[in-house]
Amino acid sequence: MTKPVRLALLGCGTVGTEVVRLLHEQAADLTARVGAPLEVAGIAVRRAGRDRGPLPVDPALFTTDALGLIKRDDVDLVIEVVGGIEPARGWLVEAMRAGKSVVTANKALLAEDGGTLHDAAAEGGVDLYYEAAVAGAIPLLRPLRESLHGDTITRVTGIVNGTTNFILSAMDATGAGFTEALDEATELGYAEADPTADVEGFDAAAKAAILASLAFHTRVTAADVHREGITEVTAADMASAKAMGCTIKLLCIASRGPDSAGVESVSVRVHPAMIPVSHPLASVGDAFNAVFVEAVAAGQLMFYGRGAGGAPTASAVLGDVVAAARNHLAGVRAASESAYAALPIRPMGEAVTRYHISLDVADRPGVLAAVAGVFARHDVSIATVRQASVPPGPAGGPSGSATRGGDADLVIVTHAAPDAALAATVAELRRLEIVRSIASVLRVEGEGS
Amino acid sequence: MTKPVRLALLGCGTVGTEVVRLLHEQAADLTARVGAPLEVAGIAVRRAGRDRGPLPVDPALFTTDALGLIKRDDVDLVIEVVGGIEPARGWLVEAMRAGKSVVTANKALLAEDGGTLHDAAAEGGVDLYYEAAVAGAIPLLRPLRESLHGDTITRVTGIVNGTTNFILSAMDATGAGFTEALDEATELGYAEADPTADVEGFDAAAKAAILASLAFHTRVTAADVHREGITEVTAADMASAKAMGCTIKLLCIASRGPDSAGVESVSVRVHPAMIPVSHPLASVGDAFNAVFVEAVAAGQLMFYGRGAGGAPTASAVLGDVVAAARNHLAGVRAASESAYAALPIRPMGEAVTRYHISLDVADRPGVLAAVAGVFARHDVSIATVRQASVPPGPAGGPSGSATRGGDADLVIVTHAAPDAALAATVAELRRLEIVRSIASVLRVEGEGS
Repeated sequence: MTKPVRLALLGCGTVGTEVVRLLHEQAADLTARVGAPLEVAGIAVRRAGRDRGPLPVDPALFTTDALGLIKRDDVDLVIEVVGGIEPARGWLVEAMRAGKSVVTANKALLAEDGGTLHDAAAEGGVDLYYEAAVAGAIPLLRPLRESLHGDTITRVTGIVNGTTNFILSAMDATGAGFTEALDEATELGYAEADPTADVEGFDAAAKAAILASLAFHTRVTAADVHREGITEVTAADMASAKAMGCTIKLLCIASRGPDSAGVESVSVRVHPAMIPVSHPLASVGDAFNAVFVEAVAAGQLMFYGRGAGGAPTASAVLGDVVAAARNHLAGVRAASESAYAALPIRPMGEAVTRYHISLDVADRPGVLAAVAGVFARHDVSIATVRQASVPPGPAGGPSGSATRGGDADLVIVTHAAPDAALAATVAELRRLEIVRSIASVLRVEGEGS
Repeated sequence: MTKPVRLALLGCGTVGTEVVRLLHEQAADLTARVGAPLEVAGIAVRRAGRDRGPLPVDPALFTTDALGLIKRDDVDLVIEVVGGIEPARGWLVEAMRAGKSVVTANKALLAEDGGTLHDAAAEGGVDLYYEAAVAGAIPLLRPLRESLHGDTITRVTGIVNGTTNFILSAMDATGAGFTEALDEATELGYAEADPTADVEGFDAAAKAAILASLAFHTRVTAADVHREGITEVTAADMASAKAMGCTIKLLCIASRGPDSAGVESVSVRVHPAMIPVSHPLASVGDAFNAVFVEAVAAGQLMFYGRGAGGAPTASAVLGDVVAAARNHLAGVRAASESAYAALPIRPMGEAVTRYHISLDVADRPGVLAAVAGVFARHDVSIATVRQASVPPGPAGGPSGSATRGGDADLVIVTHAAPDAALAATVAELRRLEIVRSIASVLRVEGEGS
C-alpha cells in the first residue's frame, strides 16, 4: 500500500468536524484521486476533552499542543480552520518554513497579512491554498488564480457575505427594517450573537482584499478596502430602490483602471448599493453568495453557490487538500502568488460611482434650480430627477415622516462621477436652507452610466 | 532574459486570430505570470497565403506543414484550434508523444476519443488542457477537475450550446416557431449556415460527455450520450411550458446514482426540457451558457458566462497556455485525467425524469379513467392533470388546430419515473381509440418530484 499523506488539522469546530467526516466517508475516492490515502495525524483543539459528538476518529488524536503537532515529522500537510490572526499566523508560518503545505480557510489572516503567509510559502517551497476563505464552496479563487491568467480582469463585483444578504433579501421581500430583519436572521441562525463582523462589512472587506489581490496581481490588504456596512439601510431606502426597479445588496467591488491622473490603479470597496433587478446579482437570495467577474476577453462571468456552512466550506478545504497532497507526492509546488503588477490603490474619493439621493425640500419655485446648481458646481451630471409633493407615496419619502405642508420629495440619480465629488455635493446640499433633510443617499451600481 | 516558451498554433480562424492578438497585447503580463516570454514559433494553416487582416505576427510564421511544425525542436507547446477528428487527433498524439504539452478547444475529438489523447499525454509525461472545449470562457473544467476533488458531484445540468439557447429564448420571448427563430439566429450570426450540429444537439452531446467524464471520474464518450435536438419544439410546446410557469431549454444532464438494480451508474443525456422560471438556468438568455453543479458537500453551484466567440474562447485557451507553460518551465506535469471510478453508463430508459404530456381526447365520460389506467399500468404516478374543453385557450392546445367539437385537451404532468416507463406510457396512449392525437411530449426537469 502507498504511504499515506498525513494531515494535521488545526481546529475542530463546524468546518473541522465536517472535514473529518468527509475524509472518513469519501476515503476510497480521495485515495484514488490523490494516489495515496489521506490520514489524520492529529487534531489540535483548545480543549481536548470536549464532547464533539460521534466523530469518526480516534479520540487519542486530539491534542492541545498545536505547535507540537505541526512540528511532528510524520505530518505532511497542515489544515487550519481556527480563524483569527494569532496564534494562527505563527502556526502557519512555522508549518510552511518546515516544508509543510498549508490549506486554510482564514480570510481575516489572509486579508490582514497575506504577504507574510505567501513569503513563508515561498521560503519553504510549499503550497498555500485558501479556496474556502472566500465564498465557501464556490470554486472561485482557483479560476481567478489559474483559469483567467491569460486574460485581464477589469472588475469583480460580489455578494460575499451570507448574513447581510439574508437580511437585505428579507427587507426586500417583507418591507421590514434593518433591526427586524437582523432579529429574524439571528433567530434562524444566519447571524451570530455578535453580528458586527458581518453587518458592518468587515467580513466582506476581508474577502474583497483577497479577491482584489488575485484579480489584479497586487497585494491588497483589508486596510486598503473602503468599508461601509448595512446598519443604516432603512425600509425607506429599500422602497426607493424598488421604485427605481432596483434592490439593495451589500457589494464588494474591486476594479482597475486609470485614476484621474491617468495612472493604472485599483479601487476596492464594500458598501450597500442599489442594483437593477435585471442584474444577475439581484436575484441572489437568502444566504447565497455570487461573484460577477468582468474580463477583457472572457467578458462577463458569474460564480454562484453557498458561501458558508460546515459542509460547503469543508468541500472547498478538501479540494485544496487533494491538490496539495498530489503536489506533495509529486514533489512539486503549485504556481505561487502572483503580485508582480503591484498596482497602486486608489482612495475611495477617486472611485467612480453613481449616487441616488432622496431629498426633502421646500416646495417653491427655484428650488430645483438651486439644487441642480450644487451638482453642477461639483461637476456631477444628473441622470434623472423625480419630484413628488408631500405627503409622500410609498416610494421616495422618508418612512414615518408626518405630513409636512409645503414640502416636496426630490429623488435624484446622478451619472458616474468620482465619489469625492458626489460626497461633496451631498455635503453642500445638506447646508442649503431649502433642503429640509436628506432622507437617503445610496450608491447605484451594475449598469452603464 | 529568460528563454521563451515557444508555441505552435494549429489553426488560425476566429479563435486562432484572437489567441494571436491576445498573446501580442498582453505580452508583458503573460511574461510576468509565466516567468518567461511566450513566443509564437509557427502557425499551421490550410492555405498560407490567405489574407487574415492585420495580425501582429510575422507572415513568415505561417506554414501548411502542421506535422513539421509540431516536430520542430524549438516548439515547446502545441495549441490546437482546428477542430474535427482528423487530422487533429494524429497531430496531438504526435505532439504529446514527443513531450510537448497540448492545449486544445476540440470538443468533438475529446468527446469521441478523449481516451487516446489522455493516454498519449500520460505516455509523453505532458499536460493536456482543454478548458475552451466546454462553455467557452467559463472556468468550468478546472473547478470540476481540481476544486471539487474533495467532494462527490451528483449531477451536472447545463445550457452549453449558445445557438439553441438563442433560438429557445427567442421562441419564449416572441412566441415564434422554431423555423422563424432559427432564421433570426442565422441572420444575426448566432447560427451557422448548416445548423445541424447545434440544433440536433451534437455539439451539446460532445460537451456533456466531457463534463460527465470529469464530474464522475469515468470515461464517457459522445456515443454514450442520449441525444435529442430542438427541431421539434413548437410554439405550442413553449405556450404549454409558460402555462406551467416554465420555459424550455436544451439541457445537458449528467447524473450518477444507483440504477434499478442498485448499481451505482451514470446517466448522460441532452434533450429539450421544461424548467421552472424560478430555476437559476431559466434566466440564462441569448447565447449565454451556464452550468449548474450539485455536489454532496458543496450543495448547488452555478457557473455562467459566454460559451462561444473568438475572444471568450481565446481567454480560456490562454489560461491553459499559461498553466502549461509554467509546468513546462518547472519540469512538472499537472494532475492527469482521473477515470478511476469507471462507472457503468445507464441506458436512457433507466434515466429518471418527468413527462409533460398534452393530449387531444374525446370529451366524454370515462376518458380520464381510461387515460389514468394507462399510466397506472406502467407504474407511472401522475402529479397534475388539467382538462379544458376545445376550442383551446392560449395554453395547452395544439396551435393551428381547428375547432373540434366534442374534443378536450388533457395536460398531464407525471412524477419522476424511468424514461422507458414514461415512453411506453405515451406509446400506449397513442394507441387508445379515445386519444385523437398527442400534441406534445416534453420532459420536465429542475424541481423535486
